[in-house]
Amino acid sequence: MHTPITSTSAGIANLTLEEKASLTSGGTFWSTKPIESIGLREITLTDGPHGLRRQDKAHDHLGIAQSLPSTCFPPAAGLGSSWDVELIARVAEAIGREARALDVDVVLGPGANIKRSPLCGRNFEYFSEDPIASGTLSAAWVQGIQATGVGASLKHFAANNQEFDRMRSSSDIDERPLREIYLRSFQRVVQDAHPYTVMCSYNRINGVYASQDPWLLTSVLRDEWGFDGLVVSDWGAVDDRVAAIAAGMDLEMPPSGGRSDQEIVDAVESGSLDAVHVDAAAQRLWELAEKTAPTDSARAVDVDAHHALAREAAGRSIVLLKNDDDLLPLSRDEDIAVIGAFAEQPRYQGSGSSNINPTRLDKAIDEMRSLSNGTIEFAAGFSLEKTTDTETIAALREEAVHLAAAHRVVVVFAGLPGRAESEGLDRSHLDLPQDQLDLIEAIIAVNPRVVVVLSNGSVVRLPFAARVPAILEAWLLGQAGGGGTADVIFGDVNPSGKLTETLPLRLQDTPAFLSYGGEFSHVRYSEGLFVGYRWYDARDMDVAFPFGHGLSYTSFSYGEPTAVITDDGDIDVTVSVTNTGARAGREVVQVYSSIGNSSVQRPVRELKAFGSVELEPGGSATVTMRARRADLAYWHPIAQQWVVEGGLYTFVAASSSRDLRGEVEVEVVGDEIDVALTRDSSLAEAMAHPVAGPLLAQAMGANGQENASAADIFDDDSALQTIMGAYPLGRIAMMGVSSDMLDQVLAASNAQR
Amino acid sequence: MHTPITSTSAGIANLTLEEKASLTSGGTFWSTKPIESIGLREITLTDGPHGLRRQDKAHDHLGIAQSLPSTCFPPAAGLGSSWDVELIARVAEAIGREARALDVDVVLGPGANIKRSPLCGRNFEYFSEDPIASGTLSAAWVQGIQATGVGASLKHFAANNQEFDRMRSSSDIDERPLREIYLRSFQRVVQDAHPYTVMCSYNRINGVYASQDPWLLTSVLRDEWGFDGLVVSDWGAVDDRVAAIAAGMDLEMPPSGGRSDQEIVDAVESGSLDAVHVDAAAQRLWELAEKTAPTDSARAVDVDAHHALAREAAGRSIVLLKNDDDLLPLSRDEDIAVIGAFAEQPRYQGSGSSNINPTRLDKAIDEMRSLSNGTIEFAAGFSLEKTTDTETIAALREEAVHLAAAHRVVVVFAGLPGRAESEGLDRSHLDLPQDQLDLIEAIIAVNPRVVVVLSNGSVVRLPFAARVPAILEAWLLGQAGGGGTADVIFGDVNPSGKLTETLPLRLQDTPAFLSYGGEFSHVRYSEGLFVGYRWYDARDMDVAFPFGHGLSYTSFSYGEPTAVITDDGDIDVTVSVTNTGARAGREVVQVYSSIGNSSVQRPVRELKAFGSVELEPGGSATVTMRARRADLAYWHPIAQQWVVEGGLYTFVAASSSRDLRGEVEVEVVGDEIDVALTRDSSLAEAMAHPVAGPLLAQAMGANGQENASAADIFDDDSALQTIMGAYPLGRIAMMGVSSDMLDQVLAASNAQR
Repeated sequence: MHTPITSTSAGIANLTLEEKASLTSGGTFWSTKPIESIGLREITLTDGPHGLRRQDKAHDHLGIAQSLPSTCFPPAAGLGSSWDVELIARVAEAIGREARALDVDVVLGPGANIKRSPLCGRNFEYFSEDPIASGTLSAAWVQGIQATGVGASLKHFAANNQEFDRMRSSSDIDERPLREIYLRSFQRVVQDAHPYTVMCSYNRINGVYASQDPWLLTSVLRDEWGFDGLVVSDWGAVDDRVAAIAAGMDLEMPPSGGRSDQEIVDAVESGSLDAVHVDAAAQRLWELAEKTAPTDSARAVDVDAHHALAREAAGRSIVLLKNDDDLLPLSRDEDIAVIGAFAEQPRYQGSGSSNINPTRLDKAIDEMRSLSNGTIEFAAGFSLEKTTDTETIAALREEAVHLAAAHRVVVVFAGLPGRAESEGLDRSHLDLPQDQLDLIEAIIAVNPRVVVVLSNGSVVRLPFAARVPAILEAWLLGQAGGGGTADVIFGDVNPSGKLTETLPLRLQDTPAFLSYGGEFSHVRYSEGLFVGYRWYDARDMDVAFPFGHGLSYTSFSYGEPTAVITDDGDIDVTVSVTNTGARAGREVVQVYSSIGNSSVQRPVRELKAFGSVELEPGGSATVTMRARRADLAYWHPIAQQWVVEGGLYTFVAASSSRDLRGEVEVEVVGDEIDVALTRDSSLAEAMAHPVAGPLLAQAMGANGQENASAADIFDDDSALQTIMGAYPLGRIAMMGVSSDMLDQVLAASNAQR
Repeated sequence: MHTPITSTSAGIANLTLEEKASLTSGGTFWSTKPIESIGLREITLTDGPHGLRRQDKAHDHLGIAQSLPSTCFPPAAGLGSSWDVELIARVAEAIGREARALDVDVVLGPGANIKRSPLCGRNFEYFSEDPIASGTLSAAWVQGIQATGVGASLKHFAANNQEFDRMRSSSDIDERPLREIYLRSFQRVVQDAHPYTVMCSYNRINGVYASQDPWLLTSVLRDEWGFDGLVVSDWGAVDDRVAAIAAGMDLEMPPSGGRSDQEIVDAVESGSLDAVHVDAAAQRLWELAEKTAPTDSARAVDVDAHHALAREAAGRSIVLLKNDDDLLPLSRDEDIAVIGAFAEQPRYQGSGSSNINPTRLDKAIDEMRSLSNGTIEFAAGFSLEKTTDTETIAALREEAVHLAAAHRVVVVFAGLPGRAESEGLDRSHLDLPQDQLDLIEAIIAVNPRVVVVLSNGSVVRLPFAARVPAILEAWLLGQAGGGGTADVIFGDVNPSGKLTETLPLRLQDTPAFLSYGGEFSHVRYSEGLFVGYRWYDARDMDVAFPFGHGLSYTSFSYGEPTAVITDDGDIDVTVSVTNTGARAGREVVQVYSSIGNSSVQRPVRELKAFGSVELEPGGSATVTMRARRADLAYWHPIAQQWVVEGGLYTFVAASSSRDLRGEVEVEVVGDEIDVALTRDSSLAEAMAHPVAGPLLAQAMGANGQENASAADIFDDDSALQTIMGAYPLGRIAMMGVSSDMLDQVLAASNAQR
């Protein structure tokens, strides 16, 4: 067990136990307790993180009242589709400036949870189904905000991948997927970006609450990953406060009115809790206060500039799913029917703790009109009200279809209603509302020149995908999404977003379909390593649009990739990309790895790195992406260590996970694995051991005629060898090896460990 | 913990500890130790169970030498496809008579393991992917053999569903699938047929060796299910002998040369093992010797009659997968090319411990010729040798294609080579050998009138299925399979077999594809409840041929089913079946159940009963099938009890799992579940509780303005209700409920338990 801290600062050292314990929970719902006598200031935390939910009244726990205005940038589902770490850092830096202006010290984000199922009600707050994508993009956000001195709170740590029964449900995950998928995303953020705080999640992991799991919060987070910040509870996540602080959970939020502080004092006094844990929690709060203390008084926020940045981010977040016959971009002179209530009533963020009160709000219809020189007419087409009568639905549709027939091109804004996507609520299906689907089909019937623009925080099914020529996946785009969408529709921005999650054909195809949600407060992560594209690839299934997919108004060709191994053992993959089309554009390049004949189960291919390049028409450039050696490792559950397997790895340069452009092979030297030979080792394992093998062959052969064949079996590759080889050493007595002989063989074999 | 026995017989009571301990392992590889002084006879056990593998030389441990001749009936994969419990009992009774004749007291079988994956090397020894089918058919076998006084040994108990790493691998299974799928099959056999012995398996279950699992061998097997026989180890399955006997594992096989007997003595003398376990094991051996003692000296076996029975069983085991344009049956005057080495070199059983030395062996080509009045010519088409050179392959194919083109009809005998199917060896794919697939395509090209007859113990992929008009799935059919096949081909037997396992389109579609085999000696049963057809139905996937499928040379129509609830609460489903074709035939009718709006996860439908009816052309009869109330139950992991959920159940009368003919709804009164309200209960659970609900509403409402909304939330069905309802009671302090108040609410709510 890790020693929580080596020393406390002078201020903390002088506090009484009661005072130190008082620092292990907040002072108000959104702030920590100051202690003026030692110069410890109050730290203010707020929700976010695609903006700030700074609540004016501290007691509005349920978040019903509006918070102070703040720029609403695209939530992670959108922003992540940019695959643009520089942009994400700029957005986070802007959020940091706004935080400073509102006296906020820590913003609760980013969310580095993996999108295990498209049903998760909080997917719009998460970046990806892939840990490298999620971890890299989250790290960029942390680096951006912390550049302003405002702390990030990496959340929700860990394995919090559903909203159903989220306060109790145990995420039951085998070690390899837990390490290689779910924790890897967080690990990268901690190690690359050093967030000031980590927020533990509500759920349990393999039966233990994240808030009180010493393995998670101390062994993994601090000892293995080197985290030296403060762990804060998700609001209400503490079940047993004493167990939590012993596990390394420093700050309980919201406060419990002194009850849990007293429990901590009592536990120390009774001897059931080591006071060192309380010292550590107080010391970490002290350090957080120091780190986040404002260094200047500059608090001006340029609201216009931040809105412009939000528009830039929105344009980068849009994914062009398809564009038959180059229907997009539309000419500014085009004659357009704009249909769909979302063009006037934008869905621009999800519900729950991340809900921002924006400084302003663009509407797509207005922004399109301001860019257009042609005719634009609008019909709502459907209503976003929860209950709409059949006659109204029919009338809205009729009006829209009439409009669609009367114009050259139809742009349909479809999407999920706001109530479908919220923290605390999972969806039960992937479908758009039926009236929208019916509307789209009716429009196609009168005018096939249809562009569908989707507003949704998480994946929806696209039954019309084959029958419309162009689809923009516009996710949730924040307050300037209307402008960003108009920019892409008219080509002012050439779309370069790519999917950070697979769009499946139907819910039944999704990896977690039969286990998601779980029951009896347990959810088995049954797909194991095969989350997202790893599942569809391994099972060789069709999808609607694959992970990493996204088109451009131009086209790109790739050269043959090359690779070099760095001094640190990382692999730099370089590929040249050429813009072969007629417009300037940006291409996001992905690097996937695979290894043949692995000794362990492996996905077909896994994302290891990505990069991007912006090119003028005809332009060409190389992009170099670093696949880290550590990211090639699998987790070895027996040795309890990361293991890079030696062998020939293939690195693929790809435009999407299913649009592979070229590959390069690299021989990687593997790690040693130090596992002892025991009575549980199989005969085959022992026969392959340099010491045990010959000794056992001799022993089995020496037993005379009756068992002479036992040793001989290992001279060829017969089926019998497989069958006999499966015997544990402890049970080969019938082959003529006595228990004493076996002990000698084991001792000799393990002598050099 | 169960008291192992209530008393020992006089003979056992007089033995010393050493003598009793000596009875806890065998005397020879295939027999127990006799103690003449107390009249305890030697018990002989042999492998099987589709015949006897009675080995002449006790020391031929590896089973290389041939055993004494015995009738080889169809292995379970074939025999089970008959869905004919009466036939299976007759076969087992015949095996019992042969056992008596060879001085065998216990036959090691049947195998009631579930076919989790088609890759399992031992699937040919198992009956089904469904627990009711597997359990019912296995029980019939036990009843049949034990009618002769010979004991059965129900194996391999439990969760032994792969051969890979079988001596160590831990089958990691959640409680519901373990109970509802894997154990349910065994439970039915134990409770219906009372096997004299149960054989524990090699593997571990959730980390504990089956051979030393007190939960498995005592709590479940004896205490819950009432098993009162002897538990024997699979040969070599004992890891820790003292732990095993304490768990209820009575007899270790093969013996360890006295070592483990001494360990037991030492453990009793040191006080680490209660002597009652040794008494129990010795007593159970005594009782087994008594139960299996021959009661008469009649030992004659009618080898001809048993061969005829084997032929009858083979005919019933064949499944007619498709028969376009009624190509089958063939006329006796038909002009036929018979192609395929299997017609001359039958695959009639699998490899491993069940391998029988048959009394005789039919060849399909001979049997067809003996029934035919027309022309039959034969070409091998391919070689069954492991390595065959390209030229030979081409020559064999050319000869066969030439023959196929020259006759009106082609019957192709294709299948898996013997080396592909063995105990101890799993397959890695589902494909037939490429030369056979190429041959079939080449034949189709010259003569589309093709009947494919398949010889395989486990599922194979059928890429040619759409391009051949007729396919007979003939499994492995035992020594008279050649005759049984000829009977079906010419219509002397109208096929009535149906699939007891799904034929998938490809390996990638199978439920366990990404977890089967496992690694690091752990295999996660990731598909949970969704084994076999439960998977394909839940995910709405196409299959090659569904569970329960099988055609006839005639056709059947079904009336509307009716249902009555018996005094015991079971549901008798009755349906009339009419033979609407021109031939006499037998129809296997299946009953599946489902429940709408279940509170727990449920398969789409599950087999609960089956029956059959034999009808002349135009004939009609009703068949009544009993769906047991207990089989409607799910396992409740919190209450640790079986729970029949109350509600409206649908019972479907079906010709296959995807050919549903009619349904009837039955209202079933559910079981009470007694689960206490605790601080871990959710607010929603508590609000629904008759006592806690009103108390909590009052408490939350009484807290004044600030939290007035908390109780109000539960007055409508808002999203907020779902979100707040997920809070555990222990964490609702912020809603105005103090810890003391909560204690009072819990006490009041649990007062009547």
